[in-house]
Amino acid sequence: MTYLQNDLAQLATVSTATITMVLLKHGLRNVWLRGTRPLGTGQHRIVGPAFTMRFLPAREDLATPASLASGRSTRAAIEDMPAGSVVVVDAMGTTDAGVFGDILCARMKARGVAGLVTDGVVRDVSGVLGTRFPVWCQGTAAPPSVAGLTFVGWQEPVACGGVAVFPDDVIVADDDGAVVIPKALIGQVIAAGADQERLEAWIMTEVERGVPLLGLYPPNADALARYAATKPGI
Amino acid sequence: MTYLQNDLAQLATVSTATITMVLLKHGLRNVWLRGTRPLGTGQHRIVGPAFTMRFLPAREDLATPASLASGRSTRAAIEDMPAGSVVVVDAMGTTDAGVFGDILCARMKARGVAGLVTDGVVRDVSGVLGTRFPVWCQGTAAPPSVAGLTFVGWQEPVACGGVAVFPDDVIVADDDGAVVIPKALIGQVIAAGADQERLEAWIMTEVERGVPLLGLYPPNADALARYAATKPGI
Amino acid sequence: MTYLQNDLAQLATVSTATITMVLLKHGLRNVWLRGTRPLGTGQHRIVGPAFTMRFLPAREDLATPASLASGRSTRAAIEDMPAGSVVVVDAMGTTDAGVFGDILCARMKARGVAGLVTDGVVRDVSGVLGTRFPVWCQGTAAPPSVAGLTFVGWQEPVACGGVAVFPDDVIVADDDGAVVIPKALIGQVIAAGADQERLEAWIMTEVERGVPLLGLYPPNADALARYAATKPGI
Amino acid sequence: MTYLQNDLAQLATVSTATITMVLLKHGLRNVWLRGTRPLGTGQHRIVGPAFTMRFLPAREDLATPASLASGRSTRAAIEDMPAGSVVVVDAMGTTDAGVFGDILCARMKARGVAGLVTDGVVRDVSGVLGTRFPVWCQGTAAPPSVAGLTFVGWQEPVACGGVAVFPDDVIVADDDGAVVIPKALIGQVIAAGADQERLEAWIMTEVERGVPLLGLYPPNADALARYAATKPGI
Amino acid sequence: MTYLQNDLAQLATVSTATITMVLLKHGLRNVWLRGTRPLGTGQHRIVGPAFTMRFLPAREDLATPASLASGRSTRAAIEDMPAGSVVVVDAMGTTDAGVFGDILCARMKARGVAGLVTDGVVRDVSGVLGTRFPVWCQGTAAPPSVAGLTFVGWQEPVACGGVAVFPDDVIVADDDGAVVIPKALIGQVIAAGADQERLEAWIMTEVERGVPLLGLYPPNADALARYAATKPGI
Amino acid sequence: MTYLQNDLAQLATVSTATITMVLLKHGLRNVWLRGTRPLGTGQHRIVGPAFTMRFLPAREDLATPASLASGRSTRAAIEDMPAGSVVVVDAMGTTDAGVFGDILCARMKARGVAGLVTDGVVRDVSGVLGTRFPVWCQGTAAPPSVAGLTFVGWQEPVACGGVAVFPDDVIVADDDGAVVIPKALIGQVIAAGADQERLEAWIMTEVERGVPLLGLYPPNADALARYAATKPGI
Repeated sequence: MTYLQNDLAQLATVSTATITMVLLKHGLRNVWLRGTRPLGTGQHRIVGPAFTMRFLPAREDLATPASLASGRSTRAAIEDMPAGSVVVVDAMGTTDAGVFGDILCARMKARGVAGLVTDGVVRDVSGVLGTRFPVWCQGTAAPPSVAGLTFVGWQEPVACGGVAVFPDDVIVADDDGAVVIPKALIGQVIAAGADQERLEAWIMTEVERGVPLLGLYPPNADALARYAATKPGI
Repeated sequence: MTYLQNDLAQLATVSTATITMVLLKHGLRNVWLRGTRPLGTGQHRIVGPAFTMRFLPAREDLATPASLASGRSTRAAIEDMPAGSVVVVDAMGTTDAGVFGDILCARMKARGVAGLVTDGVVRDVSGVLGTRFPVWCQGTAAPPSVAGLTFVGWQEPVACGGVAVFPDDVIVADDDGAVVIPKALIGQVIAAGADQERLEAWIMTEVERGVPLLGLYPPNADALARYAATKPGI
Repeated sequence: MTYLQNDLAQLATVSTATITMVLLKHGLRNVWLRGTRPLGTGQHRIVGPAFTMRFLPAREDLATPASLASGRSTRAAIEDMPAGSVVVVDAMGTTDAGVFGDILCARMKARGVAGLVTDGVVRDVSGVLGTRFPVWCQGTAAPPSVAGLTFVGWQEPVACGGVAVFPDDVIVADDDGAVVIPKALIGQVIAAGADQERLEAWIMTEVERGVPLLGLYPPNADALARYAATKPGI
Repeated sequence: MTYLQNDLAQLATVSTATITMVLLKHGLRNVWLRGTRPLGTGQHRIVGPAFTMRFLPAREDLATPASLASGRSTRAAIEDMPAGSVVVVDAMGTTDAGVFGDILCARMKARGVAGLVTDGVVRDVSGVLGTRFPVWCQGTAAPPSVAGLTFVGWQEPVACGGVAVFPDDVIVADDDGAVVIPKALIGQVIAAGADQERLEAWIMTEVERGVPLLGLYPPNADALARYAATKPGI
Repeated sequence: MTYLQNDLAQLATVSTATITMVLLKHGLRNVWLRGTRPLGTGQHRIVGPAFTMRFLPAREDLATPASLASGRSTRAAIEDMPAGSVVVVDAMGTTDAGVFGDILCARMKARGVAGLVTDGVVRDVSGVLGTRFPVWCQGTAAPPSVAGLTFVGWQEPVACGGVAVFPDDVIVADDDGAVVIPKALIGQVIAAGADQERLEAWIMTEVERGVPLLGLYPPNADALARYAATKPGI
Repeated sequence: MTYLQNDLAQLATVSTATITMVLLKHGLRNVWLRGTRPLGTGQHRIVGPAFTMRFLPAREDLATPASLASGRSTRAAIEDMPAGSVVVVDAMGTTDAGVFGDILCARMKARGVAGLVTDGVVRDVSGVLGTRFPVWCQGTAAPPSVAGLTFVGWQEPVACGGVAVFPDDVIVADDDGAVVIPKALIGQVIAAGADQERLEAWIMTEVERGVPLLGLYPPNADALARYAATKPGI
């Protein structure tokens, strides 16, 4: 990996709104995982390296209840997950079969996984909420994954919500949803993110005292000077 | 009918997640009503025979405010509903006209109807919530049904959320959404459902005490033996 | 304008369900803004003349962070909004870039804008909810508008949720969503709306005491006579 | 029926473009069957009373190869079709299972059926084209109907391409696609259709000699006078 | 304008495949008008400055047969079109109402318009093909524009097939479909386009004589040297 | 491989309509590749083992013109294709960037590849048609693959048109579109396919001489006896 766990800790104070703006300034527009949102209310922001899982459409000869016991099953993938990772499940946007239910979420939580992000759905939603494992998804459906999906592997490049995610890219998810930060850009995002958060907080105080937007947001030279004057030690 | 009301009572303790798994083991994958979810928070699980209603797209010569007074209107259908039934409304997934509002929901509740499941939406959502009549739907829209839909009949075979539903099939709806159980399979679902619930509860306790998934979920012979040892009287 | 602010005040007691029914009786079926719903819980009904904003898809040479400082930016539009207006943003249904975030919502609130209605999404949802500015939208996405949209102007005719909206048409939004009332029909809606609300409230009390629907909803001559008898001063 | 077969013959000279304009003038906007187009090149215009067929989504216990031999199968429906009718198949827009193949099309042709209109697809396209039976559909797919659809009945009201069609409404299909004429409006369409065709032909000759559009199309009083002067016997 | 008509003539030999690759090298990914394809077989490539037209969804009080005679109608727009322009119609992807039929296409042809590109459809397809006016669209539908669309203006920025188009951007359409070239980039595209076409033609001859792709396409230094040796006068 | 090349030759006389029916009888419903159809007219049926390719959505840091020269590019995949294989490209249904153009198709043809099946589109359609390489796809778009897609590998399990395809499954494509035959079922399909074709041909002759469908299609015992009497050597 090209980043350290304590680098990632710094990202925990940066919103996905700020991260997407920083990435746009680096020319990346397609980093937002569409259609995935917090399942529970009050889920805290999560940050971690992506652990990817890949599904294909169900084929009746492959996606069977028996396949759940195979050495290539979702169960085997879960037992391979490192603590601190964010699981990214490519369900191809499928909303009529749940990728995981309460038992699998409980096990991921037990293994110290940071959370789950998928463009699919989960099953047994009250059980999943009961585990307090943080989940970002499209919603819920009762049928098991094998009713609609064939699991094919983990730690491969995947698509999730219309975005390419590679193992060890970094995922940040909060109330807005989830964003991928390509591994090579972690440093830049950390560097710019905290500054941008501080600047926007100052702009918000300006708006709250009645300052109009033009010249303030984005700030022109004059506004930047006023902002600089507020920063301690500058 | 091929089942009795007290058979259905046994289903009230079985989740839709378990029912869809049991039906899959009988070869049925397409039994999950897509796009319908609980309207109110805390709606309890409902179980009952399907009472079907069928809409077509609006045609300006047919779908008029005057048509609401006809003997073939949604009103006439409601007055024909038996207590305990689950109303299944085929709105062809229409989300810009509400199939029912507060008055019709209040009347269904007064008639003892168990609940409403539709792939469409309801109107006057605060009024509908006020009736405390349980509703599973895609959301809300203010326009009356005749703004977008033509009602054509009841107790016919219908499609709801991409699934075929026949009168007297059984519907179960809970926090995940709604499933249809074909009439002929009620017995099997009842027989297998309670067992499956008990087994999964035991697996969950195993996971909670740190047991890995492989061999546990699905359980191998060893796990099944441990499970059997926990059951009273076996 | 063909209506006065105190005309609009009368609409504040009329639900969007009633307004869409009145407009249908005038031959208008396509007045419901699809896909937009309250962002916050407990947002009160808003009423006001439409202030329109128009986006196109992003083009990389136009939709840049730098464009946010232009005299034709969303910021300039906001500084042009009159108090009491309802902002209608045509985002072409885009759900992967937020049209506004917390700072812009705070500024609209400071200017006395009644609320925001869009077929797009907002960003930084916790910040937006923090401003207590009323928003109807499709959901949330973190990326800034320029990641997916090019802003081109304001106070032009727009499409929002599949409906044509012209500046100074009137928008009403409540728990069900949002409806447009063409300027020329405001008078008729006000005249019919309050009556219809009163009639439906009476019908609801009838249903609550067990009266069947046929002849009651819609009311036949007999029901109307009973209703008339309940009205004071008639 | 409220019309005679020789009434329908008069419609054979009126295009669907003209028919939809006439129906719009009677307040009907939703009469165009979306997503259905000629399968073969050079298919002539067809006109006839609708013979409706209705499918639901496949359910594995119902939609089986064995079901094709049932007395309620598509085969039974075909043997019930009167000569001259236009078959309207409600396939709910399904594009991955063919409603009919070459054998069924050959049999419909043998029975004198005028043609097939569906919002679904056909299978074995080269065989179907070989029968020279006129078909309007969304395209082709090899799987049999039972792979994705459950057939439930015929001569019921149906939806096709987002439009309500009742048995004995009239269907006209040509190079543009297919339109439904409600039974009660056949007379008006016949009356206005031929006139409108003649008028548009005259306007086309005017455009061809360089006359600008304003005042010509639609024609103002002056243009109508010029047109009247061209009509023999007026 | 920042380009001359004879500049555009040079683009007539450059395919849309080459133009999109050149624009990608300038950082523009979203320039391809989705869902629009040649209506007639054998339509030649067209090139010209965009003349834009903008529709909104139909509203029953605005989109009426009478509105077709208004001074703000599509007819008025057509009479304002300069010869050589490519008409770009923003129909918001609507496929159930035709933006133009044979008469309007004949008039555009008479005015010397280069062709029509729309994300909507045309009506009376056999008539339109009869005019030999080049059209790129999504298909055909018989209903008139006012059945589903409200026309609001011309020569404004529009969206077409998910792409922003401004008046006087340049449109090129061929067998693949249509691309927009932003006004400011015309020079670069002309400069790079012809070279790229020549290079690809040479690569094709190499492939035809059996050369493998690696190092050839894209060409490495060695391949470029071989290519240079083939160019006359270099 | 579990089948031989000369086994596959036998499949060349069996239509995809027949193959999907045989697979349905083995319980497989989801084997039809949706949305892919012949690009050229008169393309003959192709049969061969699948050679799979996998794309993800474009990410601006990965999907660049420079990436086309990488050792993991589509070019490298093509140089690895065995003669006789059918290339199956998982483009996730993307229709605004072409997976291949004329040069790559020419090279695949030179390598003896049987044909291309994709749920995406191709670019430079006239060039591709010029190569006479058989292609099944959704249509055409000029932008290069890197404008919308990131290529990640070959000979992995993929999804194509909503169906799971594994390397060495067998693909058959004809005028209807394309079907996958799981490796393990090749023998059964070959065994049943030719018989089914012969039976259906006989049924067609029966229909042509006026025999009604009931009892004929599917054939009852009587019809089967008549059929048996027609078979030489039985």
